[in-house]
Amino acid sequence: MSPAVPAAAQPAPAGRPAPDPHPVPHPSDARTILDRCDELAAVSSTHHGITRVYLSPEHARVNALAAGWMTAAGMTTWQDAAGNQRGRYEAAEPGAPAILLGSHLDTVPDAGRYDGILGVLLAIAVVERLHRAGTRLPVAVEVAAFGDEEGTRFGTALLGSRALAGTWDDAWWQLVDEAGTTLRDAFTAFGLDPAAVGDAAPPRGSVVGYLEAHIEQGPYLLEADRALAVVSSIAGARRFELTMTGVAGHAGGVPFHRRHDALAGASEVVLAVERLARDADCVATVGRLEAFPGGVNVIPGLVEFSLDLRGEHDDRRDEVWAAVREAAAEVGERRGLAFAAHETHSAPAVVASPALRDVVRDGIAATGDTDPMVLFSKAGHDAMAVAELTDWAMLFVRCGNGGISHHPDEIVTLADVAVALDAFEASVRALAERSR
Amino acid sequence: MSPAVPAAAQPAPAGRPAPDPHPVPHPSDARTILDRCDELAAVSSTHHGITRVYLSPEHARVNALAAGWMTAAGMTTWQDAAGNQRGRYEAAEPGAPAILLGSHLDTVPDAGRYDGILGVLLAIAVVERLHRAGTRLPVAVEVAAFGDEEGTRFGTALLGSRALAGTWDDAWWQLVDEAGTTLRDAFTAFGLDPAAVGDAAPPRGSVVGYLEAHIEQGPYLLEADRALAVVSSIAGARRFELTMTGVAGHAGGVPFHRRHDALAGASEVVLAVERLARDADCVATVGRLEAFPGGVNVIPGLVEFSLDLRGEHDDRRDEVWAAVREAAAEVGERRGLAFAAHETHSAPAVVASPALRDVVRDGIAATGDTDPMVLFSKAGHDAMAVAELTDWAMLFVRCGNGGISHHPDEIVTLADVAVALDAFEASVRALAERSR
Repeated sequence: MSPAVPAAAQPAPAGRPAPDPHPVPHPSDARTILDRCDELAAVSSTHHGITRVYLSPEHARVNALAAGWMTAAGMTTWQDAAGNQRGRYEAAEPGAPAILLGSHLDTVPDAGRYDGILGVLLAIAVVERLHRAGTRLPVAVEVAAFGDEEGTRFGTALLGSRALAGTWDDAWWQLVDEAGTTLRDAFTAFGLDPAAVGDAAPPRGSVVGYLEAHIEQGPYLLEADRALAVVSSIAGARRFELTMTGVAGHAGGVPFHRRHDALAGASEVVLAVERLARDADCVATVGRLEAFPGGVNVIPGLVEFSLDLRGEHDDRRDEVWAAVREAAAEVGERRGLAFAAHETHSAPAVVASPALRDVVRDGIAATGDTDPMVLFSKAGHDAMAVAELTDWAMLFVRCGNGGISHHPDEIVTLADVAVALDAFEASVRALAERSR
Repeated sequence: MSPAVPAAAQPAPAGRPAPDPHPVPHPSDARTILDRCDELAAVSSTHHGITRVYLSPEHARVNALAAGWMTAAGMTTWQDAAGNQRGRYEAAEPGAPAILLGSHLDTVPDAGRYDGILGVLLAIAVVERLHRAGTRLPVAVEVAAFGDEEGTRFGTALLGSRALAGTWDDAWWQLVDEAGTTLRDAFTAFGLDPAAVGDAAPPRGSVVGYLEAHIEQGPYLLEADRALAVVSSIAGARRFELTMTGVAGHAGGVPFHRRHDALAGASEVVLAVERLARDADCVATVGRLEAFPGGVNVIPGLVEFSLDLRGEHDDRRDEVWAAVREAAAEVGERRGLAFAAHETHSAPAVVASPALRDVVRDGIAATGDTDPMVLFSKAGHDAMAVAELTDWAMLFVRCGNGGISHHPDEIVTLADVAVALDAFEASVRALAERSR
């Protein structure tokens, strides 16, 4: 929807040196990454914009594209038992443990083109550089392109990375998408064997650590005029499906004092969520809301809505949830409505491994930023799931347009991608040295 | 969904006099009407509940059922140029002007089984009685079963009765349903010729007046312990499609101070609508609301919602709308959102013709209620559209369950239907005498 790169950041034509006073390092590798982002952006279930969900035909198509790029980077590839696209660049000594790099290829509805995707392509590009240089490290480098991080299709997030982490929950098989398809049936339709999902997890000890690069999805790097940051921790998110149930009725015939309007009640809850989360320095979002039966002249008898709740500290986040429940119960009492909540996702805040955080900091420092910014991530990431399997750290890359994400206006610059690639490569090399 | 008749009101077995101290007059005619309501209720586009919209396959099926009943009642029948099912019971002198009776067969989503439908079946039952008695009146009696009153499919209401009234607006051809089908294409798919829609209107002077029976859709008859009322006037309704546009973004990455959350803004408007309408003694309903893109972890960038606004007095209703717009603009200003409104329907309050109101009052009085209740209708009715063609009056029938309507729990009693039929027949006979 939007140009991927501002005109000023376009690489100079081939064969002519760039006169830019801030030369872009290795512009061609970064250019390839952005071109690949564009290629993936064309794979969508919608005509306009980008929407790509777990176990969809679009998922299969982007896996095939990623597999091709992995192969070109010298990797052996496979689609794992949960539909994640995987690749392995062998160590100097075959069969050695591996550094795992990754992020996700699925999207929210009407998404941007970098969220998750940039991290997968940076990982492949790091391997491509090793391959091009003929370098074999003391450890292998594996790349995982996760099939579900956002939870767009089944409500529950991180399904791909949780399968890899070996923390799959059999209760999830009964999750249903909007068409009523269960996760189990979606697995089978995608050509996967639900009984084999455990095979997605590598043996314990075979992974030495996990590094993930990701756009910041916030304004802090932009405001600080920095390209990269090291991530200190990831906020724990909880997600709920909420319902407010009243009584449908005729928009003309039912006077206000006899109404049990589910939408008026839900609207109060939406505003209470905003107020309570803000006051507690947490972040909360009602992203979905629909009134039923949905007739223009019918008082809504039911509202279905969602709540996504995040906080740097789990206890404070949980206090907000308790306050929201209390506020919703009060609204229900006063209006004669029934409020109900079903938790679909819960993740505690996770803290990056100090040793791997140092590796990422050193990687950034190698690009010239000797005192890198440290950021706390309010967005969830695959690293949260992989944290159950191995140590982890993350590299944040600045995004433009005020830091907008989950929106077509999501943007990164060629220069930032180039420096991110250098930092990420340096981090991988440093971690390999430490894992020798 | 609910039993149509409480057990206590069941008619006595045939051949045995009812020992009920409050005997039900003509229970068999009323029983037929309720059985037909049940038969129509089975014609739905959904598996559960009743949803039947304009120009749908279900519309064609209920037209065919109504045509069969009209024929059995001695009427000639035709489907008119707008898809309304019509029937004519000839006068003593063929070609005489006609009393028009009618109501609608379409429904809101997940509707009850009496709204509109009871009025059509009462009208047919009146003709059936004339036919059975071999009575020809000095005027013909025509029945119109309108195909669209609710506006469920195309947003704009009263399409069927407006076609009959000769007030069709060619701008409506471009209305689209949720599937993107234009009204014009829906006409063609239903087998109608858009160019011929004007033929649905009878010649001026050929109709002497319009009478409509309808359930009250409110609690006032129930609270007053009365079965029937005469309608004084119908509130003018205005309907709007509203949008609140903000900026979609990541539920984790965007701090509150940078959000432009369309749903939080729309929630404020929903509550302002309720407060402003209640304070002005008007009725307002937001029946539809949906947030987009609708991801659980995406800040809503767009909310589409509806507003239905009614008042006994047009000027006060219009003041409420001005206040709502002002409140929405203030919300938009404060939150960095854009509010927009598009009016889809506007009808001024209409007052029943004094002469025909007297006819209905006399009809009720003939059943023993000598000082009938007079009610103002907050719900819109086909009579509002037919008012452009001829004089009109309406008969309200009590509904139970607190007066609930636009809901599966909509209910009437056999006894009330029986007395309504007597009153409606008496009204028709009285109007025929006055039109001699």
